[in-house]
Amino acid sequence: MTETTWLWLDRIGIVWADLMLLATFAGGIVAVFKRGRIRDWWRRNRFPDIGRDLGQDERWPAFLLNVSKPDLPKWLIENQQPAAIALLATEQSRETADDIKAFAEKHGAEVLGPYDIDDPDDPSESHALAATLLDRLRQKGHARIAVDVTGGKVPMSIGAFMAAEEAGCDSIYISADFDRELKKPKPQTTRIRCISCPNTD
Amino acid sequence: MTETTWLWLDRIGIVWADLMLLATFAGGIVAVFKRGRIRDWWRRNRFPDIGRDLGQDERWPAFLLNVSKPDLPKWLIENQQPAAIALLATEQSRETADDIKAFAEKHGAEVLGPYDIDDPDDPSESHALAATLLDRLRQKGHARIAVDVTGGKVPMSIGAFMAAEEAGCDSIYISADFDRELKKPKPQTTRIRCISCPNTD
Repeated sequence: MTETTWLWLDRIGIVWADLMLLATFAGGIVAVFKRGRIRDWWRRNRFPDIGRDLGQDERWPAFLLNVSKPDLPKWLIENQQPAAIALLATEQSRETADDIKAFAEKHGAEVLGPYDIDDPDDPSESHALAATLLDRLRQKGHARIAVDVTGGKVPMSIGAFMAAEEAGCDSIYISADFDRELKKPKPQTTRIRCISCPNTD
Repeated sequence: MTETTWLWLDRIGIVWADLMLLATFAGGIVAVFKRGRIRDWWRRNRFPDIGRDLGQDERWPAFLLNVSKPDLPKWLIENQQPAAIALLATEQSRETADDIKAFAEKHGAEVLGPYDIDDPDDPSESHALAATLLDRLRQKGHARIAVDVTGGKVPMSIGAFMAAEEAGCDSIYISADFDRELKKPKPQTTRIRCISCPNTD
């Protein structure tokens, strides 16, 4: 190529770069004026993969649970035989949580807690505790952890759910048909439902 | 400047562009091999601002509710005097939902629903319905909507919560001290708690 061709290629390149800079600058101006809407849109959470049915043979080596009643957590421990569980409880459910702890240890699981939640209506409390406990379970080498949101009051469940989402853990719900005569869940209908399960097939 | 200076500036520019392209290419190669971890990290949801106490004079013109019992929704309607509400109910709570609808209409609110949730243990059902109804409330001109996650089973609450997060709406919980003798919430202690409130101060 001649020197003149090179010169023109260079000039085209410079004009092109100027135009791109101008576009970037204009985009920047728009972004400053629309910053609120851009931030809101950008910050929004997304839940693309929720509520699927899980396979019968899905297994997690570790669980985090909010405790209210004993039946479903005990079913989970028998059914999954986890290596470790972490328990969150309230003043009302403390005794049940101790009972579940004994049951889990009998089944060979290491148990963290039960840890007390002071105000069950404050999601930030269960969120912070759950995040800490998920970290600790990970440090003990459990890479795959499920957060069971079945027990506890709604803000506790949502707090634990938020911690699961932030840590990239699965969140599950234990579902069972209710026996109206015996006033407790029918054990044979118990199954694990997915709330949000990024780590399952 | 002389032609020689320009020539050298161009050459520096070309070498610089080549280095940048090389870096982009190398980054791309790393990204392909680490794509799983990058995607997981990128996709994770974040909840930076949860569980705060709300001011007494916080007002929302529209609400979406999961219905189980009548007391707290009625308190919310009396306390907030919303222009519109949307109701999600199950077979069990359908009658209560109709009762709340009549109550809300008497207080001048437009009511969408009650819409039925077939399987209260499936969060994707309440998630999809709640997303549709939030859209419809927005189309009616209500920009500021709160999703009340107090009622319904846990998967319904979490489904509605996820729809609120995706739409950038506030989610709230109605909290009241429980009267053990009368076996119902004490009305004078009732207050609105924030679950996740991006639109409040």
